[in-house]
Amino acid sequence: MAVRAAVAGASGYAGGELLRLLLVHPEVEIGALTGNSNAGQRLGGLQPHLLPLADRVLEPTTPEVLAGHDVVFLALPHGQSAAVAEQLGPDVLVVDMGADFRLEAAADWERFYGSPHAGTWPYGLPELPGRRAALAGAKRVAVPGCYPTAVSLALFPAYAADLVEHEAVIVAASGTSGAGKAAKPHLLGSEVMGSMSPYGVGGGHRHTPEMVQNLSAAAGAPVSVSFTPTLAPMPRGILATCSAKAREGVTADSVRAAYEKAFADEPFVRLLPEGQWPATAAVYGSNAVQIQAAYDESAGRVIVISAIDNLTKGTAGGALQSMNIALGLDEATGLTTIGVAP
Amino acid sequence: MAVRAAVAGASGYAGGELLRLLLVHPEVEIGALTGNSNAGQRLGGLQPHLLPLADRVLEPTTPEVLAGHDVVFLALPHGQSAAVAEQLGPDVLVVDMGADFRLEAAADWERFYGSPHAGTWPYGLPELPGRRAALAGAKRVAVPGCYPTAVSLALFPAYAADLVEHEAVIVAASGTSGAGKAAKPHLLGSEVMGSMSPYGVGGGHRHTPEMVQNLSAAAGAPVSVSFTPTLAPMPRGILATCSAKAREGVTADSVRAAYEKAFADEPFVRLLPEGQWPATAAVYGSNAVQIQAAYDESAGRVIVISAIDNLTKGTAGGALQSMNIALGLDEATGLTTIGVAP
Amino acid sequence: MAVRAAVAGASGYAGGELLRLLLVHPEVEIGALTGNSNAGQRLGGLQPHLLPLADRVLEPTTPEVLAGHDVVFLALPHGQSAAVAEQLGPDVLVVDMGADFRLEAAADWERFYGSPHAGTWPYGLPELPGRRAALAGAKRVAVPGCYPTAVSLALFPAYAADLVEHEAVIVAASGTSGAGKAAKPHLLGSEVMGSMSPYGVGGGHRHTPEMVQNLSAAAGAPVSVSFTPTLAPMPRGILATCSAKAREGVTADSVRAAYEKAFADEPFVRLLPEGQWPATAAVYGSNAVQIQAAYDESAGRVIVISAIDNLTKGTAGGALQSMNIALGLDEATGLTTIGVAP
Amino acid sequence: MAVRAAVAGASGYAGGELLRLLLVHPEVEIGALTGNSNAGQRLGGLQPHLLPLADRVLEPTTPEVLAGHDVVFLALPHGQSAAVAEQLGPDVLVVDMGADFRLEAAADWERFYGSPHAGTWPYGLPELPGRRAALAGAKRVAVPGCYPTAVSLALFPAYAADLVEHEAVIVAASGTSGAGKAAKPHLLGSEVMGSMSPYGVGGGHRHTPEMVQNLSAAAGAPVSVSFTPTLAPMPRGILATCSAKAREGVTADSVRAAYEKAFADEPFVRLLPEGQWPATAAVYGSNAVQIQAAYDESAGRVIVISAIDNLTKGTAGGALQSMNIALGLDEATGLTTIGVAP
Repeated sequence: MAVRAAVAGASGYAGGELLRLLLVHPEVEIGALTGNSNAGQRLGGLQPHLLPLADRVLEPTTPEVLAGHDVVFLALPHGQSAAVAEQLGPDVLVVDMGADFRLEAAADWERFYGSPHAGTWPYGLPELPGRRAALAGAKRVAVPGCYPTAVSLALFPAYAADLVEHEAVIVAASGTSGAGKAAKPHLLGSEVMGSMSPYGVGGGHRHTPEMVQNLSAAAGAPVSVSFTPTLAPMPRGILATCSAKAREGVTADSVRAAYEKAFADEPFVRLLPEGQWPATAAVYGSNAVQIQAAYDESAGRVIVISAIDNLTKGTAGGALQSMNIALGLDEATGLTTIGVAP
Repeated sequence: MAVRAAVAGASGYAGGELLRLLLVHPEVEIGALTGNSNAGQRLGGLQPHLLPLADRVLEPTTPEVLAGHDVVFLALPHGQSAAVAEQLGPDVLVVDMGADFRLEAAADWERFYGSPHAGTWPYGLPELPGRRAALAGAKRVAVPGCYPTAVSLALFPAYAADLVEHEAVIVAASGTSGAGKAAKPHLLGSEVMGSMSPYGVGGGHRHTPEMVQNLSAAAGAPVSVSFTPTLAPMPRGILATCSAKAREGVTADSVRAAYEKAFADEPFVRLLPEGQWPATAAVYGSNAVQIQAAYDESAGRVIVISAIDNLTKGTAGGALQSMNIALGLDEATGLTTIGVAP
Repeated sequence: MAVRAAVAGASGYAGGELLRLLLVHPEVEIGALTGNSNAGQRLGGLQPHLLPLADRVLEPTTPEVLAGHDVVFLALPHGQSAAVAEQLGPDVLVVDMGADFRLEAAADWERFYGSPHAGTWPYGLPELPGRRAALAGAKRVAVPGCYPTAVSLALFPAYAADLVEHEAVIVAASGTSGAGKAAKPHLLGSEVMGSMSPYGVGGGHRHTPEMVQNLSAAAGAPVSVSFTPTLAPMPRGILATCSAKAREGVTADSVRAAYEKAFADEPFVRLLPEGQWPATAAVYGSNAVQIQAAYDESAGRVIVISAIDNLTKGTAGGALQSMNIALGLDEATGLTTIGVAP
Repeated sequence: MAVRAAVAGASGYAGGELLRLLLVHPEVEIGALTGNSNAGQRLGGLQPHLLPLADRVLEPTTPEVLAGHDVVFLALPHGQSAAVAEQLGPDVLVVDMGADFRLEAAADWERFYGSPHAGTWPYGLPELPGRRAALAGAKRVAVPGCYPTAVSLALFPAYAADLVEHEAVIVAASGTSGAGKAAKPHLLGSEVMGSMSPYGVGGGHRHTPEMVQNLSAAAGAPVSVSFTPTLAPMPRGILATCSAKAREGVTADSVRAAYEKAFADEPFVRLLPEGQWPATAAVYGSNAVQIQAAYDESAGRVIVISAIDNLTKGTAGGALQSMNIALGLDEATGLTTIGVAP
C-alpha cells in the first residue's frame, strides 16, 4: 500500500532534491506538486533532471490541492509552514523542511526570525540522543537545518561523553545550493566560481541557535557556539570543521572510542578509518555523513570534521529518513550511502 | 537468482562508476574486484563514495580471481582486454569498457591504436539501428566510447532519414573524468578549473573512427567526421554540438519528425520539448541522453546537441544497459533517467 | 597630459574590467563613473576588487556628469548608446562597448535587435584588414562583441587567403561573465557549476551577423556562419572552435603560412607553436589572443581555435586598444599579453 | 639602472607567478630562469600565460647559471635553498620562497621538516611589528608561507592590542595551486572540483609553527594555534577564518580601533568597511589583503577573516614586496591592490 506524498514548493532546490529521492522510494507514490509563482508550469522546464516528472504541472499551494495525501512535505519560505499545516488535519504526516518548528525557545525564534514562534515539532535528526524515539509515529516533523545537521552530528558525541569544554568553534563551507534558487547577484556563477567568502559572521546566522540547542542538550548544560559559515565554489556539500577545548585527560583513544560508540549502529553515519578525512565529493547525492575526529595535543583541542550533502542528508534525505521512522518503515528505505563521484 | 559480476579495474573512474550502479542493481551480486598497482588496498581509500564496499580489498587481475562469475566487466587500459577475455571461457558474459573490440575495420584500429586488431564484438549502443538485436544473448559486448555515444545518438537519426550531407562537424566538451584517474600535470585541478582547452584536434582523437563507423552505418554510405574534443572545467558530462549541411527540402518539421521517430520507444533518450536545450547538469549521474535538434535555415545546417554523463551512459551505465539486454533482463533494470542536480 | 576618461555603466562586468585596465593605463585619468540603479553607491561594494576606487561614488548617467572628458566609454544596455552619444559633442572620443554601432546593414540590426538602426561606427578590431587605419583619429568607436572578436580573428586569415569555402561552422564556449551581472536563475552558481549548456542555437545569437559581416569582408564574398554558443562553468574566457571546408590544394603548410603572415606584426595575437593549443586559462585577464590552426586531411577541413578573455580582449581591453589607436597612442599602452594563471 | 633577477624554479606555480609580476616590475630585468627536470624546455610550453617569455629556455640550477644577478629568487623544494644560497655570495640578495629560513626555533624546523635547521633569515612579512625594519638592506629574505601570511595579518593586531586570549582557532580554505604543480591523484581536477576536504588536521600542517611564532611575537607570550587547512575547488586564494576568546571588556569598537590602527599606513592591507566581508575573488592576482573583524558577543570571541591570493601576497607578491624593501625601492613598486574579477 503506497504512501501518497505531496510536495509543497516543488520548484526549488529542496523540493527538487526531495522529488529525486521520492522517485526511487519503493513505498511512496508522488501526488500533488505545488509552487507559487511557478504554478501552471511544467516541471520539465524547472527541474530538467527529473525526467520521469517532466510532464507534471505545478499546482498552487492550497488546502484543496494538498488534501488526500498521507504525507505532505513543506519546502516553503520560513514562516509559511504553520498556516499550511493547520489546514491539513492532525492525521496527515507533515514534514516541514523550513525552520519554523525547529527551535524550542520562542525567544530564539523571535530574535533570529523576527516573527512570533509557531511551536516546536519532533526534530528530524534521529542520530541525536532521544530524537529517534520521538519521531516514531509522529505526525509532525521539523527537518533540521543543513548546517546544524553537519555540526550537531560532528560534535554531540564529544559533548555526550564530556570530552570537551562548553565552547564550540565551528567554521563550515557550504555549496551554493544551500542559498536557494532565488536569483541574487552575489550567487551568480561569475561571482561564486573561484571564490570563498564568509557570511553571517559573528553569531548572526539563523542556524546558530539550533546548534546551541542540540549541543546543549547533548552536554546537559549550555554550550556556546561560534559559527562562521562560508560559501564555497561548488553546487552541493557542507564541510564542517568543529572544535572545542579538550577536558583534561582526554586522549586520541578516548575521542575515537566516544565516536565509535556514538555511531556504531547508525546506518547513515560513517566514522572514517583513522587517517582518512571526509570530503564533500564522497557524499554527493547521498544521505551519508562522513566524520573524522582528532585530538590536537599541542593546541589542546578536539577537532571533528563532518561532510554531508546539504540537499540530501542536510535537507531532503533527512526529511525522508524521518518520514520513514514516523511511518514505521525501515529508516533507510529509499535512501543511500553511496555518493556520486568524481 | 543473482547474477554474479566481477569488475577488473575497480579503482579507476569507469570501475568506480560501474560499482556505484551495480550496488543498486537488483539482480547483481558484486563478486571479485581487481586492480593492478592497487591490489591489496581497501576500496574505501580509493573510492570513498562507495561506502558499502569500503572494506572490500582489491585483488590482482588474474584468471583465478575472475573465475566463477556470470559477468566480467573489463575496465582496463586499451589493448589488455583480449588477453583477459580469452581466459574467461565462452560462457561468461564479458563486457569490455575499453576500446579493443569496438572498431570493425582492422586498419582503423591499427592506425589509431598502433597495435594488432583483436576483433569486433557486438556493440553496446542498443539505440543504434540493429544493435539491440545483436546484443540479445551475446556473450561478448564492446561498450562504446563516451564521445561516440553522445555523437552517434545525436546524429544517426539525421543520417538514417537522409536529412543531411555526409560531412559532419562535431565539437564536444567533456568533463575531466573522461581523461581518467592517472595523475598528469595538465589534468590538475589548478590547470583545468577556469579553463577550456581543445585536444586531439584535426582528426587525431581515437574516437573519430568509431563515430565514422556508426554514422556511415546509419547513412548507408561513408560519412566524414570533423571531431574536436575540448576539456571543460567540470568532473563529468559531455555536451556534443553536432551539425551537417541540410539536404534540400529539409525543414524544421522534418527534422523534428525524424528525431521523434528515432527515439519514440527509447527508455534512455529524451528528445526535449522544442525550445529547451540539453545541459550536462541535468544528466549528472544518470543514464539519460538529452537531445535537441534545430534547423538553421540561414546557414543551411541541421544542428543537434546531446548531453550525457560520460561515466554513466557514456561508460558504466551503457555497459550495464547492454548487460541487461545480453542477459535477457529488462533493459532499464538498475538504471535511472534521473540526474543529480543542481 | 592625461586623457580624462568617463565610464558610463561602471557597476557591471564590462565597466569593472575597463576600470581595472584604466587604473594601470599610464596616460589615463579616471573621471566620472556612472550607474543607473546603482547611482549613489560606493564602488567598493559593487566592485570589491578595485580597491583604489573603493571610495568613489557612482553618479547618474547624465550629460552633465559625462561632460568635460576626453573619452567617454559606454557600457550600457543595447540601444541606449545613441542617445547618450548625441549629447557628448563631436570632439569627444566615444567608445561604445554595446552593440549599437557594430553592424553595417540596418536590416541585420533590425532583425536581431528589433529596433531602428542607429548607424555604424569605426569597428574596434584593428587586426582585421583595413580596420586599424579607420580607427586612427576616430571620434566614435564600436567595440566588437566578444564572440565576434574570437571568431573573426580565428577565421579571417583563412578567408583572406582563400583557403576555405564560404560556410563556416563555429562552436564557442564562454565563461559566465559574458552573460552579464543581472541576476537570472539560469546563471546562478548552482546552475552553471558542473554544467555545459548551449543557447541561441540555430542562428539566433545576436553576434552571428557581426561574424558574417567580418568574414564576408575578409572573403570578399558572402560567408554563411553556423554559430553555436555554449555556457561553460568558468567566470571568464572564450574558446572558439571554428572550421570550414578546405579549398582544393590546401595543405597544413599553406594554412600555417597564411596565419603566420596574418599575425606577424600583431602585438596581441599569438599564433602558437605547432602542437600547442590555446587554453582560456592562459589568457585570463590579458588582452592576448592565442590561436592555433590545423588542416584535417581526413575530413577536408581547416580547424582554427582561438582563446580570449571575453572581458579583456573581448570587451574592455579591445576598447582600450582602440582608444589608444584613436588617440594616437602606442596601441599596446596599458595593455598586457600576460595572463593570470593558474 | 635595472635590477637583474634570476629565478630558480621557474616552471612551478610560485616561479610562474613571480615571473608574471617581474615582467611588469619597472626596475627589474629578468635574467636566468632555471628548472630541474624541465631544464632545456621552452617556457612557452610550461607557462603558456607568460607570452613575453615564451621563447626563453630553462637552464639547470647551477651556481654558474645563477651568477651575475643582483637578486636570486629561490622557488625550490624545501631543504634545497641553503646549498644554493651558500654559493651565491653575501652581496647577492637571495629571496627564498621556500620554508627553509622562516622558523627561528631549530626544534620546530626539525620536528616539522625532519632535517637539520639551516638558519633564520629576515622574515618577509613587513606588516608585522618590527619586520619591515629588518628587511631594509637585507641580503637574505625568507618569504612567509601562504597560510601564515593570511593568518598572521588577520590576528596579530588582536594579540598586539591584547584583545584576546592566547589560544587561536583557525580554519582556512586554500585554492589548489597552494599544493603545487606536481601531479598527484588527489589534486586532479576530477577530484577537487565540487569538493571541500581538510588535510593536515590536528596540528600536523607545517605552517603551524610559523603561525605560532608570529602570533607569540605579537602577544609577547606563547600563543597556541589550532590550525585546520582545507582544500577548496578553486585555483587560487586563501580565506582564513581566525578567532580567539575575547578578553573581558573587549567591544566591537575596541576591535575595530585596533585593526584600524594596525593597518592605517599599510599599502597592501585593506580593512574593509563595516558590514563588508572579504572574498578571495576580490584579491585574485593582487597583492592585497582584505580583512574584516567582528566581535561575537554571544560566543565571546573575536572573529577575523582575511582573504589573500596564495600565489601573489602569499608567495610571489610577498617576495617582491620584500625585495623592494631590501633594495630600498618603494615597497609597492610593481605590485597592485587591484584584483582580477569576476
